[in-house]
Amino acid sequence: MTLILSNDDVEKLLTMPDCIEALEEAYLELAEGRGITRQRSDCVTPTTYSENAVYGLKSMDGVVPKLGVSAIRINSDIITNPLVGNTHRRVKVPAAPNDRYVGLVLLFSTHNGEPLAIFPDGVLQRIRVGATNGLGIKYMARANAETIGIMGSGWQAETQLVAACTVRDIKAIRCFSPNRENREAFSARMSELLGIKVTPVEQPEDAIAGADIVMCGTNSIDPIFFKKWIEPGVHLSSIKKPEIEPDAIRAADKVAVHTHDTAPMLIVAKGAKFQENKKEAGWNAANALDFKAFPTLPDLIAGRVTGRDSDEQVTCFLNNLGLGYQFAAAGSVIYRRAREQGVGHELPTDWFTETVHP
Amino acid sequence: MTLILSNDDVEKLLTMPDCIEALEEAYLELAEGRGITRQRSDCVTPTTYSENAVYGLKSMDGVVPKLGVSAIRINSDIITNPLVGNTHRRVKVPAAPNDRYVGLVLLFSTHNGEPLAIFPDGVLQRIRVGATNGLGIKYMARANAETIGIMGSGWQAETQLVAACTVRDIKAIRCFSPNRENREAFSARMSELLGIKVTPVEQPEDAIAGADIVMCGTNSIDPIFFKKWIEPGVHLSSIKKPEIEPDAIRAADKVAVHTHDTAPMLIVAKGAKFQENKKEAGWNAANALDFKAFPTLPDLIAGRVTGRDSDEQVTCFLNNLGLGYQFAAAGSVIYRRAREQGVGHELPTDWFTETVHP
Repeated sequence: MTLILSNDDVEKLLTMPDCIEALEEAYLELAEGRGITRQRSDCVTPTTYSENAVYGLKSMDGVVPKLGVSAIRINSDIITNPLVGNTHRRVKVPAAPNDRYVGLVLLFSTHNGEPLAIFPDGVLQRIRVGATNGLGIKYMARANAETIGIMGSGWQAETQLVAACTVRDIKAIRCFSPNRENREAFSARMSELLGIKVTPVEQPEDAIAGADIVMCGTNSIDPIFFKKWIEPGVHLSSIKKPEIEPDAIRAADKVAVHTHDTAPMLIVAKGAKFQENKKEAGWNAANALDFKAFPTLPDLIAGRVTGRDSDEQVTCFLNNLGLGYQFAAAGSVIYRRAREQGVGHELPTDWFTETVHP
Repeated sequence: MTLILSNDDVEKLLTMPDCIEALEEAYLELAEGRGITRQRSDCVTPTTYSENAVYGLKSMDGVVPKLGVSAIRINSDIITNPLVGNTHRRVKVPAAPNDRYVGLVLLFSTHNGEPLAIFPDGVLQRIRVGATNGLGIKYMARANAETIGIMGSGWQAETQLVAACTVRDIKAIRCFSPNRENREAFSARMSELLGIKVTPVEQPEDAIAGADIVMCGTNSIDPIFFKKWIEPGVHLSSIKKPEIEPDAIRAADKVAVHTHDTAPMLIVAKGAKFQENKKEAGWNAANALDFKAFPTLPDLIAGRVTGRDSDEQVTCFLNNLGLGYQFAAAGSVIYRRAREQGVGHELPTDWFTETVHP
């Protein structure tokens, strides 16, 4: 049987420690060349949805033979790009029936090719982003790090904190985000979830000053962390290329990136209003950095480089681009747990296989 | 509702004339840059299936805004590469439960992103290969072509003939393939299907001599058509790079290829026994040709180049690589017909969409 799982299922099945463990094992395979990942591709075209929106078909693949799985993650998006405050934000519109987004993971077996499971990508998407930055902290932050300053109070910020608290014994967290209501609600919710006091603050500096770990967990496409805010021994963590200004990255003693796949393969149809928006934002500055010169998280995990050589060093982890590979690794845990717990809709595997030679 | 369709459904829903028409329209969009396609990728790793097999995750995407659809085609294969006669053949093994192959097409709407349908790729795969070579014949073969010599009697050969007979008024067909039983059974079956006499012959020369159109429709990875066999005015058609020897291609007056995506993006894991087999075959010779120097089928359809300038010219169409784009174009027809005819399992679209931002 092929399992159809929901985001609720994924949320129940995949714990952060499990996800971090699976990713750590998978990244070692990747570093050794035994696991492989295919660069994300973005196909962008006009859409009848609206004149200023685009349609995007995004896909990324990965295979982890050691875990017996491969995965493809697919997003079929209607995307707008409005100006919010001073910052351009790429906004996906829930345009599918019942006001829903479209993101899917298909998980296959490398033992016999069979489709094991199909599930939405949303919950896993943020858990794996969190787990990845968590591994950045595990390998780069001071062992005795116990305070976090986080910028952002949205969807990604939550798993960023959960992951950080999984790999370090965190005692206090301060949160800045521009909207008071958001940061206060987020801080209250996270205090309860983590059992650690999360304090909302009014200025980014209030979150950052004295923090052992600074986490950027926003959807900004302009810089939100600047060189002037760097303190000795701090670990900087970002989930998106433009969040940390290039000069701050250059000032760090140790920098690591998630992957050397520095940009998606972008294929834009004539008439799609996409690239022009992108050029207005902070991406160009970020892209001036040579991301391939930095070691990757798999390099750190394989022990090829050290994440930090002293408590005084400034370290920086840039989660520069997602990998289909992450969905395979975490997917293997989700599938195993779903089978153990009898979760999901079971459909005949024959519906997704064929007798005809493809 | 999201439709789950079977190969039987696809076979009933998609006629060759419909498929050729949809592809022709879609290729014009592609030529004009309004439709886009993402290069096929092949991820290859070891598999526990057997020591000499590999696991392959293949994917390709395409978006045809004019037809309102995008598609991703995925293959999750166990692949062996045995020596059959003098020829290496890549053999996919039906290793999934109930001895089945795994190939899927996911079709999405560019209007709102929603997943429209999921169906196996096998039947469509060969119909679109046939339709593509059929368009090669439509734009390159003599208008009065009426005889075909075909090499191959397998799965692909059938739709090659159906497509050729859709675009030209064919009167007689001769078929060579090395196994007598296969070519006789194929010829009998195709005679009935097409209402045109298909004659099995014992030597390739017997099929080729005097034919207006020579079709190679095999899974050989060594050349099977040679320069010495070329006659004035013939149209040569191939479904796979190595079938026609490079000297024969060079000898043609007009050559067109399916696409300038000349090779898949190949990502091979350490320990996968894949590339070494490939090197033994005829691919290297074929790849010595500069495929990007030839016009593409979309160029022909958009009228940028002529397929043939006189009845004496020798023309050659090389279906060098498949495109995810074809699955989107043909998928739009399959989906429309399925809706019209009430075919397929309907599953709640909510199973394949999400409220969570991906």
